[in-house]
Amino acid sequence: MNAPLPTPVLPEVHPRPVPPEALAALQARFGSRLSTAAAVREQHGRDESAFTHVPPPAAVVFAESTADVADAVRLAARWRVPVIPFGVGSSLEGHLLAVQGGISLDVSRMNQVLAVQPEDLTATVQPGVTRKQLNEAVKHLGLFFPIDPGADASIGGMAATRASGTNAVRYGTMRENVLALEVVTARGEVIRTGTRARKSSAGYDLTRLFVGSEGTLGVITEITVRLYPLPEAISAAICSFPSVEAAVRTTIAIIQMGVPIARCELLDARTVRAVNAHSKLGLREEPMLLMEFHGSPTGVREQAELVQAIADEHGGQAFEWATTPEERTRLWTARHNAYFAGVQSRPGCRAITTDACVPISRLADNVLAAVAEADAAGIPYFMVGHVGDGNFHMGYLIDPDNAAERATAERLNHALVERALASGGTCTGEHGVGLHKMGFLRAEAGDGAIALMRAIKAALDPDDILNPGKILAG
Amino acid sequence: MNAPLPTPVLPEVHPRPVPPEALAALQARFGSRLSTAAAVREQHGRDESAFTHVPPPAAVVFAESTADVADAVRLAARWRVPVIPFGVGSSLEGHLLAVQGGISLDVSRMNQVLAVQPEDLTATVQPGVTRKQLNEAVKHLGLFFPIDPGADASIGGMAATRASGTNAVRYGTMRENVLALEVVTARGEVIRTGTRARKSSAGYDLTRLFVGSEGTLGVITEITVRLYPLPEAISAAICSFPSVEAAVRTTIAIIQMGVPIARCELLDARTVRAVNAHSKLGLREEPMLLMEFHGSPTGVREQAELVQAIADEHGGQAFEWATTPEERTRLWTARHNAYFAGVQSRPGCRAITTDACVPISRLADNVLAAVAEADAAGIPYFMVGHVGDGNFHMGYLIDPDNAAERATAERLNHALVERALASGGTCTGEHGVGLHKMGFLRAEAGDGAIALMRAIKAALDPDDILNPGKILAG
Repeated sequence: MNAPLPTPVLPEVHPRPVPPEALAALQARFGSRLSTAAAVREQHGRDESAFTHVPPPAAVVFAESTADVADAVRLAARWRVPVIPFGVGSSLEGHLLAVQGGISLDVSRMNQVLAVQPEDLTATVQPGVTRKQLNEAVKHLGLFFPIDPGADASIGGMAATRASGTNAVRYGTMRENVLALEVVTARGEVIRTGTRARKSSAGYDLTRLFVGSEGTLGVITEITVRLYPLPEAISAAICSFPSVEAAVRTTIAIIQMGVPIARCELLDARTVRAVNAHSKLGLREEPMLLMEFHGSPTGVREQAELVQAIADEHGGQAFEWATTPEERTRLWTARHNAYFAGVQSRPGCRAITTDACVPISRLADNVLAAVAEADAAGIPYFMVGHVGDGNFHMGYLIDPDNAAERATAERLNHALVERALASGGTCTGEHGVGLHKMGFLRAEAGDGAIALMRAIKAALDPDDILNPGKILAG
Repeated sequence: MNAPLPTPVLPEVHPRPVPPEALAALQARFGSRLSTAAAVREQHGRDESAFTHVPPPAAVVFAESTADVADAVRLAARWRVPVIPFGVGSSLEGHLLAVQGGISLDVSRMNQVLAVQPEDLTATVQPGVTRKQLNEAVKHLGLFFPIDPGADASIGGMAATRASGTNAVRYGTMRENVLALEVVTARGEVIRTGTRARKSSAGYDLTRLFVGSEGTLGVITEITVRLYPLPEAISAAICSFPSVEAAVRTTIAIIQMGVPIARCELLDARTVRAVNAHSKLGLREEPMLLMEFHGSPTGVREQAELVQAIADEHGGQAFEWATTPEERTRLWTARHNAYFAGVQSRPGCRAITTDACVPISRLADNVLAAVAEADAAGIPYFMVGHVGDGNFHMGYLIDPDNAAERATAERLNHALVERALASGGTCTGEHGVGLHKMGFLRAEAGDGAIALMRAIKAALDPDDILNPGKILAG
């Protein structure tokens, strides 16, 4: 039996008091790496979500090693103090907010690439390593790490939210690309999940359980990921379309024909306009697909020709191709800056970002209805999509202090998610549940599955100290 | 802290008594679909493992619907009677054996393909549908389901063991290809995990938790899987090599260069000999790679040329190509019959099959040492490998009643797994833990991870009725 779909409201805040002895014990262990300075706490009590009402954590611990993380969790556990892991703060759903108080455990200084095994196409990194940093570290080996959520997120945070992004249509998400983890449990014990083997049937899949657990089951302290040989040839293209529908229908045909496209991204006309303004570009202000093809020179050419023919059938025009790294970077600038261009198109606003992902056959009707409803509501928004995966984002741009705007955005969000679930889809393709989608998750998963998730949370974190109040409501 | 690696011994048998009231209640609910006939029980108390000493289950229930499964589990739960899900009985590690007594829950009559969504490349099936049956059902749509463990296993059993097989190097395993499940919990409740969206960050990944849980956390009653467009072109090849090492080194080079090979299988000379005898073939009795390439005609040709060049460098010869379905089937007969050809090469024997999977750079030394040790021990064996994944199987052919032969096989198995773990690999790439690898799992995962697995098992199945005594020892 599934619960009805609620409309999200502002998360409740119930900070647990942090006993002075707990802070003193952390201070004794971490010295100057424990901070209670207002600016530091503020910076760790914020993310990219539209929630601005939650007080910051009581303190921030800067961990530099797995032993630091284990000790911090052990001390927190002794006084039942909440622990919120923090990477770079780029999450969108309130994951980092201290709704139950406690401490932020900043792992950004754990930023070493510990090992690269080029012959096995694997690397092991600390959680504070960012995706760009990892790519810099392996480029000279002819390798790359494909998961690209846009922001230069930390690999730890990306694992914790089961992130994906532009390359997922070809290379999968963090679910498919994390081979093994080191995790500190709620008792402060250090465990390992998985091995460097490409596949395994060895017991319960703890790796996949921690991937996407948003810091609520353990703190990730090491991640072993898959790497890929840099493609022999890469070709990028942008193509304009007379309508969002034409762009989406082109995407559907590409996927259904099995074209191994590496990236397939949609921007609507108003988002292209925002990007032009933000990045001083001169793109046609029409719905646009950005695509990328990876393979041998011949394979890339074949894919490109096939896609061009499909796009032609749907009125695609003004194809622009880029094969050199510099040209590709210029084209992708539009996509990579879309989020910030959107947010900055309305000074002082915050974005309430949707993240539905639907079966590809339902993508057109889901996207079109969302756009029509947003237009009818008259709310400013941007729209981008990893449409090759059936995943798209509306970013409703609201004044966070304006309750009416928030209500409008959440009403649109509700309608969008309701349609996605009715289409056999999910409320979140890649951003995670955090604070914002707990009600959506309950409706999507059903009470039976939620009960199992609760049982797992209770079994692994009986005192509810690991990022409490997230994923599973109340 | 990891436990030392034990040498497997015969599993202990501690049947729990099944109260007559429990059997009577099941009889009242299931009528003639409950069987206590000796032949039926015997058939459900056996698998392809080398364990022949375990008494059969007390009864067999033939489920025809999810409601049947839920009722059977609920009744079993009332009297704490173990429930062992049964598909086609093709597992290799004792998964089905009633070491704690109880009932076998046969789901083979739940064999309907419930839905196919060709436009979304998904299908939903009941657990008794076999992989060949699913492929027959979607062939006319130009689609296929790639996971091929050799045996015509049930999709439910394949999900439960996280199976893979010959196509995994290109298409992944059940881990990557199951999108959603319906599961009956230990309390007899029906829950759903996942959606038909290609990716999701919606809470804990229950789908991946049940995939590979070997019937110990719930009974899978529906599976939604990914399908793929049939490749435009398929080309298969066999190639003989002067040594196992040359064949393995060829494989390593293929993978490291990122060739998107669809299948890459190794047979050693003695296995080719067994296959020749079994299937009346005339293959060169030398180490052999069987390969398959999927893609566009040009792409397949490119891959084939590259692989041929790599093989040439390692002394590969007698390349034989097949592009028509009939020719391909003939070539693949060798691989598909390898297990039975091996077992039948010694009448009356059973195979103790290893399943290590290692990082590709360590494949050559792991395979060569295993072969050298088996040759030195003078035990009959066969050897096949999904070498593109770093996964290989030694099948030691023993008289199951000969304790000395069993001890020799287990000694070789122990040495092989010890080396695989030291190489950063896993004791089981695809067969699962069952009864046979519980000690290996503990050494591989470490006590901390095992404690988490136990906590999950206790949370989801507090009375330990779901396939008890498997995965997590005593």
